[in-house]
Amino acid sequence: MRFSPALFLVLSAFFATTARGDGEMWMPQQVPALGEELKAMGLQLDPNSFADLTGFPMGAVVWTGGCSAAFVSDDGLIVTNHHCVDGSLQYNSTAERDLLTDGFLARTRGEELHASPNARVYVTTDIDDVTKEIVGNMPAGISDQERAELIDDRRKQMVIECEQSGDVRCWVRSFFGGESFLRLTALIIRDVRLVYAPAQSIGNFGGEVDNWMWPRHTGDFGFYRAYVGPDGKPADHSPENVPYQPSHHLKMSTRDLDEEDLVLLAGYPGSTSRLVTADEVRIAEQITMPREVRLRTELVDILDAQANGNRDVQIANASRIRSLNNYKKKYTGVLTAFSRDGLLDQKLNLENELAAFYGANPERADEYAALRREYRQLLEREQSTDERDAIFRWLYTASPLLEQANRLVRTATEREKPDGDREEGYQQRDWPRIQADLRRTQQSIHVPSDRAGLRWVFAKALDLPSDQRIDAIDAAVASAPGVTQDERLEALLDDLYANTQMNDLDTRLAWAEADRKSLLKQSDQFVAMAARLRTLGDTIDDETSAREGAQYRLRPMLIAAQREMQDGRLAPDANSTLRVSFGTVRGYEARDAVYYRAQSTMDGILQKYTGEPPFDSPARQIQLAKDRRFGPYTDPDLGTLPVGFLSTCSVTNGSSGTSALNAYGEIIGLAFDMNWEGVAADWVVNEDVVRTIQVDSRYMLWVMDAVDGAHNLLQEMGLGIHFPEAANLAAPDTGP
Amino acid sequence: MRFSPALFLVLSAFFATTARGDGEMWMPQQVPALGEELKAMGLQLDPNSFADLTGFPMGAVVWTGGCSAAFVSDDGLIVTNHHCVDGSLQYNSTAERDLLTDGFLARTRGEELHASPNARVYVTTDIDDVTKEIVGNMPAGISDQERAELIDDRRKQMVIECEQSGDVRCWVRSFFGGESFLRLTALIIRDVRLVYAPAQSIGNFGGEVDNWMWPRHTGDFGFYRAYVGPDGKPADHSPENVPYQPSHHLKMSTRDLDEEDLVLLAGYPGSTSRLVTADEVRIAEQITMPREVRLRTELVDILDAQANGNRDVQIANASRIRSLNNYKKKYTGVLTAFSRDGLLDQKLNLENELAAFYGANPERADEYAALRREYRQLLEREQSTDERDAIFRWLYTASPLLEQANRLVRTATEREKPDGDREEGYQQRDWPRIQADLRRTQQSIHVPSDRAGLRWVFAKALDLPSDQRIDAIDAAVASAPGVTQDERLEALLDDLYANTQMNDLDTRLAWAEADRKSLLKQSDQFVAMAARLRTLGDTIDDETSAREGAQYRLRPMLIAAQREMQDGRLAPDANSTLRVSFGTVRGYEARDAVYYRAQSTMDGILQKYTGEPPFDSPARQIQLAKDRRFGPYTDPDLGTLPVGFLSTCSVTNGSSGTSALNAYGEIIGLAFDMNWEGVAADWVVNEDVVRTIQVDSRYMLWVMDAVDGAHNLLQEMGLGIHFPEAANLAAPDTGP
Repeated sequence: MRFSPALFLVLSAFFATTARGDGEMWMPQQVPALGEELKAMGLQLDPNSFADLTGFPMGAVVWTGGCSAAFVSDDGLIVTNHHCVDGSLQYNSTAERDLLTDGFLARTRGEELHASPNARVYVTTDIDDVTKEIVGNMPAGISDQERAELIDDRRKQMVIECEQSGDVRCWVRSFFGGESFLRLTALIIRDVRLVYAPAQSIGNFGGEVDNWMWPRHTGDFGFYRAYVGPDGKPADHSPENVPYQPSHHLKMSTRDLDEEDLVLLAGYPGSTSRLVTADEVRIAEQITMPREVRLRTELVDILDAQANGNRDVQIANASRIRSLNNYKKKYTGVLTAFSRDGLLDQKLNLENELAAFYGANPERADEYAALRREYRQLLEREQSTDERDAIFRWLYTASPLLEQANRLVRTATEREKPDGDREEGYQQRDWPRIQADLRRTQQSIHVPSDRAGLRWVFAKALDLPSDQRIDAIDAAVASAPGVTQDERLEALLDDLYANTQMNDLDTRLAWAEADRKSLLKQSDQFVAMAARLRTLGDTIDDETSAREGAQYRLRPMLIAAQREMQDGRLAPDANSTLRVSFGTVRGYEARDAVYYRAQSTMDGILQKYTGEPPFDSPARQIQLAKDRRFGPYTDPDLGTLPVGFLSTCSVTNGSSGTSALNAYGEIIGLAFDMNWEGVAADWVVNEDVVRTIQVDSRYMLWVMDAVDGAHNLLQEMGLGIHFPEAANLAAPDTGP
Repeated sequence: MRFSPALFLVLSAFFATTARGDGEMWMPQQVPALGEELKAMGLQLDPNSFADLTGFPMGAVVWTGGCSAAFVSDDGLIVTNHHCVDGSLQYNSTAERDLLTDGFLARTRGEELHASPNARVYVTTDIDDVTKEIVGNMPAGISDQERAELIDDRRKQMVIECEQSGDVRCWVRSFFGGESFLRLTALIIRDVRLVYAPAQSIGNFGGEVDNWMWPRHTGDFGFYRAYVGPDGKPADHSPENVPYQPSHHLKMSTRDLDEEDLVLLAGYPGSTSRLVTADEVRIAEQITMPREVRLRTELVDILDAQANGNRDVQIANASRIRSLNNYKKKYTGVLTAFSRDGLLDQKLNLENELAAFYGANPERADEYAALRREYRQLLEREQSTDERDAIFRWLYTASPLLEQANRLVRTATEREKPDGDREEGYQQRDWPRIQADLRRTQQSIHVPSDRAGLRWVFAKALDLPSDQRIDAIDAAVASAPGVTQDERLEALLDDLYANTQMNDLDTRLAWAEADRKSLLKQSDQFVAMAARLRTLGDTIDDETSAREGAQYRLRPMLIAAQREMQDGRLAPDANSTLRVSFGTVRGYEARDAVYYRAQSTMDGILQKYTGEPPFDSPARQIQLAKDRRFGPYTDPDLGTLPVGFLSTCSVTNGSSGTSALNAYGEIIGLAFDMNWEGVAADWVVNEDVVRTIQVDSRYMLWVMDAVDGAHNLLQEMGLGIHFPEAANLAAPDTGP
């Protein structure tokens, strides 16, 4: 791989600092500069090896588009989380054969199942610094909005050129708030097959009840295999395809694991906000998140009231309610952690330190002060329309019909442009995803609930301050018949729901192919409302672009100042690119007088076991556990089978399936969740409580060896078999 | 005090054993033999001092009838749990002055309030071995029932004689299953006054939510004062009375407390079942407790259904439901712990060891085997009517009206006998309690709920096996009009509820004074039914006496065998007499990967604090905590204010308020609960998890000093004042 050295040269001054950096998500190229530290923590590999994306171990780390994963054999065997392969288990299930419940094991290559038409494996092969190409040669006097749009155009153009060959997928990602842009190139493998997953009672043990929670006892792992054409190149799914031969793969560890052992996570974390300013924290803490919690609570109450004991309505609204509640819970937890950790004060202190750091040099001090001032003004401008913009976004959350209409309008509008000029998400490459979304939404449509939600959010819009109105809604209500505003609102809703086909999937699928003119000719009132709302939508998009353009100017300088003060020791926010997080196996003080130990064991499964989901387990597993037949997978210190462990590494969405490596680069587990006390880790890493939850490799191997008899895979990975009698068991797939 | 030495001589061989005996409830007289062990654990007092009930420290330990307590000043100041003084707070509250909520502080003696007419303080002054007097000279050929009745008569007679003076209360208690009988003599102080209790938001912080739970943050403490007549003798409540001068009092400790520090509990544990046989465990585990859980669940469901949203019905049934649920929860926990700890196997192993212990001596082996056989036959005989007897007992739980009628019938029946011949609980000395019970029951009477409960339990009676019938119910149903049994049952219930005055308190109070003949002449159908049920009740009482008589013969021998094998190291089951339990400050593994530390702190109060009961706190307390103003009460290792701690001692009902002493005999805390994981401690002490929860003396003193300004009491106890500004606060009693 190629990489401009200039960008990371500053890292050389690292060792002046004392903080260890547990939980940061380092770019692979930053790891060599952390070498001394990693060696002190026990690393046995050459720290420089992490910068080589095609070497060991990084060459074995892959992405599925939503999850992280890793090659574990010469024949393209891939390990990731159970919840990353569960879609494939569902895809291959039938009324007679419930793979999700029973699990699945292919004992031969021929038994492996097509994971799904959309399953992909991305193997990052190159990371190139394209900062100059993206932000260089900006025309003089360009406005912030023009800057953002130009950067956007250049990125899209670069991606289209990069993907010409058809065998690769490319991304141009911004790092450090736009300080640098890197192009990532990944081989895209299109034939992915399902090899093995334990029963749901192992892979999802604890279910929603244990979600976010420690101690955890979930066997959250499964196996795919990557296939390519006989010529070794990516190919569509076909019986002729052969297993992909990766240049490197990782070994599953059976070594003992102890507190304070080194842990390295190599995966694709999605997105974090750790480098934001104090003002941005204040807005999130005092305005955005409390509002999100409030609005979610209100909408959930409305949807709950709609069901009123009716099971069909409950089912229709279930996934919306679950999603609203999930984020409500998360934001509530984040707000608690903000307050617990004093994040705002931390940020203010950091900014005061920065001001003091530059204080000795009046010119730089003035420069920094001006920078902060302009960035603050930018946020103030954003805040001046924040209530309106928030309610505008919530229109589409409150009414799936309006969201679908909006999508059709935008699809039709963007389609009229050349592909490279279209908005991200509406390009040719996004077409399959758009269709899938249209289909999936159908199950969440329940017209009375939709109307109740739309009435609620329209009423919110009608309550907006006079300088933040949504004209399309004001006009529509004003022109509806009725004496009071309430009457006019009801009349508008009557008209909207009486004159729409948005609740019909076939109509939506057909209209998604229409051009803008013929779409609008359908006289669908939801489509018409969505089109009228686009005026404000476009304004907001323009304002967003202008803000982004200014941020591209300002944030790199703010972040560079921080990096300078920290002697170069600064990891960029996560952005779905390959990262390395390091730390150690460690427990934490969960609350007063309660200490959570770093390792969970089979004892906990027996304690939690009820025989009913989510605390069910295969009978054979329970019997082996009661007989304490753990063979060489027993942890010598714990004296029982280890199941999960905590590390001081941190993860975020997209990190699922990330391999946890020991000092030798062997897989000691798979990250699959973070702990509740660390829920604010996307914003700030409080090393006292932020932990990643991994399933222990020894538990995975014991399940494969003793419970499911997946001996063919153990052999393929070069591992021994200690429960030969399990080979004769019925496979986890107990269907016909 | 006097004590026959022969009984405890066997203790001299103690040191051959290795187990430390944490959590056992030793008789004070047994402590000297444990001296070496206690010294090794750090005891600085003379171990022999514990055997002297009128010396230090035992002379300072008292009983309130329901709780344990201790003198803490020369002027009769007594410290016990908040939940032991809350009745006095309620008794002294008015519509304008809510002492329970606000707390109460008497700044002068004159402000102290009469605790309640029934409040008593018992100071044990003598324990005498009366075994010979009670079980000696048994007539030849006496039956088991006659034996039990003779023992009963002798005990009652001895108590009446002992209490002649009027200033003492006496009990004759059986130890080691009837192996020995001790007479306990206690000074009875009849003028008890309320001195101080913190607000409920301190004294009951956590409430029902935290009940049984660790970590705990309840400031469960309060103060009484004992008053006597000017002549120094016990007297009825009067303004002329003066504070009682105890011969000894305990000092409140402000020393540091660490894990593994020695803890001694000196109090009055109520009752345990640790010395029962394997057969008795089996019956409890497989029959009695599962049935109790099942019947409680059914009755709670019936009472819940009665309320159906009606608040008045909910209130009427609340305390019944709470009590049913409390014991349901407890029995469920005990059953889980039995299974976790393998109690039955432990008991079987112990009995096999005993058999082996005697194996070398054929004569003793035969003797022991015969003993076990006869004891088992005794239990089998009990089991042969167990279903009937259980339903018979449940009649009175299911219907408070029937329970009240039964009480009237029994009171009238017993009153016809000389006081010494009456059943325990129906003697002259029990009269105030009987009246109080009649009054208290009134608030739990809700006739439709009563009828639903009675219908349910009558139906159970009608389902009993043919050899275990309750004839009075069979006859009543058979003679009621109706074609089907259901119709006849409804007709019987119609008649019962149409022709009773049991729901009228005044009637009950009047009838409680009536003789049997005039009571029965009232033609109250509940009284008539209760009288007819007494036939079986008397039979069951006779059977119980016969069984007790046999147990008096057999259990001492079984227990003596166990003591012999254990080199004399055996504590008797708790029986509401003064005991000493020792152990250390220690945390425990609550479940897989979760370790509960031994000490809780103010941090936990801030974490739990919501501002709403049960997680409310006085504003001043929260402010001081946020400012970390803990003064010298700060724990040097924890760096914050300690609130509660765990010890390996064990407690049971009646232990509430027990002083926890350090190696110097100073009060380091008050025991107020046990932990959920140790819920089976009444049956077996699993040292890994059985813990007592104490409130830390430093938290008590900080609350008194800094929050409530109870400086007069700190001075009386010879302690310093570190928050002088708190003296000017409004007292916790903020009423007019």
